[in-house]
Amino acid sequence: MTIDATMPHWKPHVHRKRAAQHECIPPAWLLPASVQANPPSNSVDAIRASGILTADELAWTDTTDIQDLVALVASRKVSSEQLTTAFCKRAAIAQQLTKCLTEIFFERALTRARELDEHLRTTGQVIGPLHGVPVSIKDRFDIEGVDSTVGWVGLVNKPAQSSSSVVQLLESMGAVLYVKTNVPQSLMMSDSYNHVFGQSVNAFNRALISGGSSGGEGALVAAGGSVLGIGTDIGGSIRIPAALQGLYSIKPTRGRVPWDCSFLNQFYMVPPVAGPLATSLATTEYLMDHLLASQPWRIDPAAIPIPWRKELAALPTDRKLRLGVVFDDGVVRPQPPVMRAMRETVQALRDAGHEVIEWDASLHKQGTDLWTKSILADGGRHCRHLCEIVGEPLIEGMVVGTEKDLLDIEEREKLEKEKVAFETTFLNQWVTSRIDALLMPVQPWVGYKPKTWVKSSQWLGYTAMWNMLDYAALTVPIGAAHRSLDSVGNGANAEWEGHQVRNESDQFNYEQYDIDLVDGMPICVQIVGERFGDEKAMAVAKVVDKLVNLK
Amino acid sequence: MTIDATMPHWKPHVHRKRAAQHECIPPAWLLPASVQANPPSNSVDAIRASGILTADELAWTDTTDIQDLVALVASRKVSSEQLTTAFCKRAAIAQQLTKCLTEIFFERALTRARELDEHLRTTGQVIGPLHGVPVSIKDRFDIEGVDSTVGWVGLVNKPAQSSSSVVQLLESMGAVLYVKTNVPQSLMMSDSYNHVFGQSVNAFNRALISGGSSGGEGALVAAGGSVLGIGTDIGGSIRIPAALQGLYSIKPTRGRVPWDCSFLNQFYMVPPVAGPLATSLATTEYLMDHLLASQPWRIDPAAIPIPWRKELAALPTDRKLRLGVVFDDGVVRPQPPVMRAMRETVQALRDAGHEVIEWDASLHKQGTDLWTKSILADGGRHCRHLCEIVGEPLIEGMVVGTEKDLLDIEEREKLEKEKVAFETTFLNQWVTSRIDALLMPVQPWVGYKPKTWVKSSQWLGYTAMWNMLDYAALTVPIGAAHRSLDSVGNGANAEWEGHQVRNESDQFNYEQYDIDLVDGMPICVQIVGERFGDEKAMAVAKVVDKLVNLK
Repeated sequence: MTIDATMPHWKPHVHRKRAAQHECIPPAWLLPASVQANPPSNSVDAIRASGILTADELAWTDTTDIQDLVALVASRKVSSEQLTTAFCKRAAIAQQLTKCLTEIFFERALTRARELDEHLRTTGQVIGPLHGVPVSIKDRFDIEGVDSTVGWVGLVNKPAQSSSSVVQLLESMGAVLYVKTNVPQSLMMSDSYNHVFGQSVNAFNRALISGGSSGGEGALVAAGGSVLGIGTDIGGSIRIPAALQGLYSIKPTRGRVPWDCSFLNQFYMVPPVAGPLATSLATTEYLMDHLLASQPWRIDPAAIPIPWRKELAALPTDRKLRLGVVFDDGVVRPQPPVMRAMRETVQALRDAGHEVIEWDASLHKQGTDLWTKSILADGGRHCRHLCEIVGEPLIEGMVVGTEKDLLDIEEREKLEKEKVAFETTFLNQWVTSRIDALLMPVQPWVGYKPKTWVKSSQWLGYTAMWNMLDYAALTVPIGAAHRSLDSVGNGANAEWEGHQVRNESDQFNYEQYDIDLVDGMPICVQIVGERFGDEKAMAVAKVVDKLVNLK
Repeated sequence: MTIDATMPHWKPHVHRKRAAQHECIPPAWLLPASVQANPPSNSVDAIRASGILTADELAWTDTTDIQDLVALVASRKVSSEQLTTAFCKRAAIAQQLTKCLTEIFFERALTRARELDEHLRTTGQVIGPLHGVPVSIKDRFDIEGVDSTVGWVGLVNKPAQSSSSVVQLLESMGAVLYVKTNVPQSLMMSDSYNHVFGQSVNAFNRALISGGSSGGEGALVAAGGSVLGIGTDIGGSIRIPAALQGLYSIKPTRGRVPWDCSFLNQFYMVPPVAGPLATSLATTEYLMDHLLASQPWRIDPAAIPIPWRKELAALPTDRKLRLGVVFDDGVVRPQPPVMRAMRETVQALRDAGHEVIEWDASLHKQGTDLWTKSILADGGRHCRHLCEIVGEPLIEGMVVGTEKDLLDIEEREKLEKEKVAFETTFLNQWVTSRIDALLMPVQPWVGYKPKTWVKSSQWLGYTAMWNMLDYAALTVPIGAAHRSLDSVGNGANAEWEGHQVRNESDQFNYEQYDIDLVDGMPICVQIVGERFGDEKAMAVAKVVDKLVNLK
C-alpha cells in the first residue's frame, strides 16, 4: 500500500486491518463481485441464494433452538466440524452483506471443533452443554491471542493476553468460538459504526442500521450466522439490536453473567452487563441455565452465586399474571408500528385472562437523567485516551461526556446518594404495584438509516432506565411494521398525526418516521423484571411468546 | 453550666449530651456511689451483686438463645414489657460499668413493648419472629427521632429523619429497640473511644478495651444487657469486639443484611457491612434466617435476594470437613493464648476426623495493603468535615487518611484494577484448595488497655483482608487466656520467647503481651467462608462450637 502523506496517521492501520480481515474469508465463501456490488436488501435471502451452503448447512444454521444443535453433535449425527463449517460459511456471507464481524478465526475454530469431535469419538462424552456448537461474541470480550479493538484504531494489533471469564466458561462448556462482532466506536451509540471495521447494517434491510452497541451480534444472529451471540448492555446495547432484528435477548441483573469488566472511571456507577441474543427464547434460557450451572463465581470474584432458578422461570400454568405496561413514557412517543404492536400484545394478554395495568412512568425521566449523568461523569476521558493512541477522531453523536460533564469525587458522591434515593423510591413503586413484570417498547422507533442516529438527540430512556436500576430486561418479538396498518395521512393513525411534539428528541423521532423505510421490520416488546427478576421476566416472556408467536 | 472561656467550643455540647444521657437512666437503676467510685472489674459480677434485677430478670437476661425469649413472650409467659424492663435495667447498669451506650430511650421502648403486648393479647398473634424482644444496635444506624452521632460532637442533637432499613426490618419483625451503642470517633479503631460518650471498656475486665468499632455493642452483649446486638464491620469492627468478649458474631457478605449506607467517597471500594453479635451461635443464625426471610430486598435496593439457606448452614453429619488454618499470617505473630487456643481447636477437629491443612497466607499482606489504600483513599476528608462542624480534634491513631493518601480518580481506577486482579488470584487459591472454610485468629492479641491501641502501628490483616475480598467471616469462642499455660519465661512458650520481631506492628504486639493483664480473657477463632459463604461458614462454626463448647 502506498502511504499517502495527506492521509491521517491512523488510516493505514485501518487499511491493513481490513485487508487482514478479508483474508480470513476463504475465496470459495466470497459472493460474486456482481452480488457484492449490488447486494439484496435482506441478507437471509442472499445467503439462501448464494449456493455456498449445502441444504444441510442451511437447515442447521436455520435452527432456532440451540438444544437441537447440541443434540445433533452429542448424538454424533453431525460433527462439530460440520456444524462449525456451516456457521463459518454463513457468518462469512453475513459479513459481506452486513459488515457484522470484527475478528474472524475460522481456522482456529475448526481445529477446536475437530478436537471436540475427537474427544467425543474416543470418550463417548461431551465436555459440556455446548459441546461443539459455535457461539459468537461481541468484540468487547477478550479472547486470548485475538485483538480486542472494541472499535478503536489504537487497539488494533494488540492481541489479548488472556480470555474474559465468560469466554473461559463458554469454552469450558464446549462452545466453539469463531468470530467476534462489530460495535460502535466507544460503544455508546445505537448504530454500530467505527473507523476500524466500518458500518454494520441490518440483516433484513441493508438500508437500515443493525443497532448498537451489540449491532454486529444482532445482524449476525438475525442472518443465521450464529445460533447464540453474547452481547453487552449499558443502556440498551443488547436490547436495541435485538429489537431491530426481531431477536430474543436478555440484559441480566449484574453479577449473573460473569464479566471481569472493570472500568471504574467510566462505568463505576452503571456498569455494563453481558447477556445472550438468539432467535428463540429457549436458546437464551439454555445459555443462562447452563452458564450459571458452570459456577461462574468460582472464577469471577464479582459473580453472584445464584443459579438459574428454573422453577421461577417456568411457564406459569396455575395462575394469571399481573403486568404493568408503558405504551408511551411521556418523553418520546413511540412510532405507530411500535404502539400498535404493543397494544395488540396487551390485548392478547388481556384476552387470555391476564391483568395488565397502566404503569405510572412519571419517575422514568429522572431515572434516565441519573443514568446520563453517571455515564458522562468521566468527562469523556476514557474515550479521549483511546482516540489519542493514534490520533483517531471521536465519532460524532455518541453518548460520551465532555469536560463540562466531568464530576469530581464530591459530585460523584452526591450523585451516588441521589441514585440510592431514587432506587429506593422506585423500588417502593414496584413492590407496591405487585406486578410480575413491566411491558414496554424497547425503543420508540422501528429503524433508522445509518448515521441518522448520530445526529439525533438520543432518548434512551426506554432501555437505560433499567441499567441505572440494575433490573433484568428481556426482549421478545411481537410483530412487524406494516404499511397498511401503520401508515399516516390516511386517518388510520390519527393520534400520531395529531401528536404535539414535546421536546427535541420527540421531534426527531416524530420526523424520522417513514413507513416506506421500515415496512416489514420487526418489533419487540421489552419485558422488565426487578433486580434479580431475570427468571420471573423469563416466565412472563414465555407467556407472551406463546400467545404471540407460538399460537 | 458555666461556660469557661478557655474551654474548646465543642466541649459544652459534650457536657450537655452526657448529662442528658445520664438523665435517661431511672435513679432506681443507678449503682451506689461507692460502687461507681470503685466498680468491680467484671461487669457481670457487678450486675448480679447490684440487686437491681430480680431473679427472673437475671435469668431472662442470662439467656443466650434468643429463641427462648421469643418463645417466652409469644406464649405470654413473660410480657414484652417485663422482658424489656429487664434488659433496660441490665443495659443501664452495664452502661455505668462499661460506658457501652450512646442513645438511651427506655421510655420509648417500654411504650412499644406495651403496644406489642396489647397486640398479642387482643389478636393472639405475634407481629413477627422477634415479637417483643429487645435488640440493641450500634450507633451507626439511624432510628427516626434519635441522634446518630457516630461518636462525632458535630452530630449531637441532630435526630435522624428516618430509620435505616435494618431498623425498619427489625421493627417489622417485632423487635423492641431501646439503646444504641458506643463506637470510636471515625469508627476506624479497635478501641471505642470518642469525645461525646468517652471510653467503653471490656465487660469482663474494665482495665481492658471492649474493642471497636462495635465496641459498645460487644460490651453490652457480653454484660448481658442485650441478647442480640447489630454491629457493623469494615475491617474487623464486629469480629474484634466479639473476640475480645468471647461472643459469636457474623460479618456477612455485602448485600445480605440490608444497610442503606452510602458513603461513596470514604467507602466506595470497601463498604462496611452489618451483622449480629450474641452469646450463642443459634441467636446469630436466628437473626440471619428471619431477617432475610423478611425480604430486605423489597425495601433496600442494594440487598440481594438470597434467603438464609438453612440446608447449607446445617451441621454436617454425613461428612468430614476440609479446613484451612492460619496460625500466623507471617506479618504479626499471635500472642501465646491465641496460638494455643487455635492449636487446641485444630487438634480437636483433627481428633474428630476432620482434615485441617495449613493455608498459605503469603497473599494476605498484599490483600491487606489494598484494603488500607482503599480505606485511606479519601485522604481523611470525610472525617475532617465531621471534625470541622464544631472544631472537634481528630483522635490520634485512627485508620483515617491524610492528604498524602488521597487518590484522584485515575489512581482509584488503577487501585480498583489491582483489587480485581487480586480478588481473582485469591479466588483461584481458594477454589483449588477445596476447603470448606478457613480458621484463623480474629486478631493476634488478647487484650489492650484503653488508648494503647491508638499509639500502636495497627495490623488489621487478620480481619480486614476479608472485608477487602467481601468474604463471610464468623467468630466462635474457643477458650481463654490462662496464666499457667500462657506464661512466658518458664519455657512453656519457647517459640514466643525466641520470636524475632518482623516489623513495627509485630514488635508492638510482642511487647504488649502480658499474661497478668489478660489472664482469663476470652479467645475466639475466626471462621472464614468465601463470598456468599455465610451459611457454609455457619455450618463449620457449628462443628467447632459443638467440639469446643458444647461437649
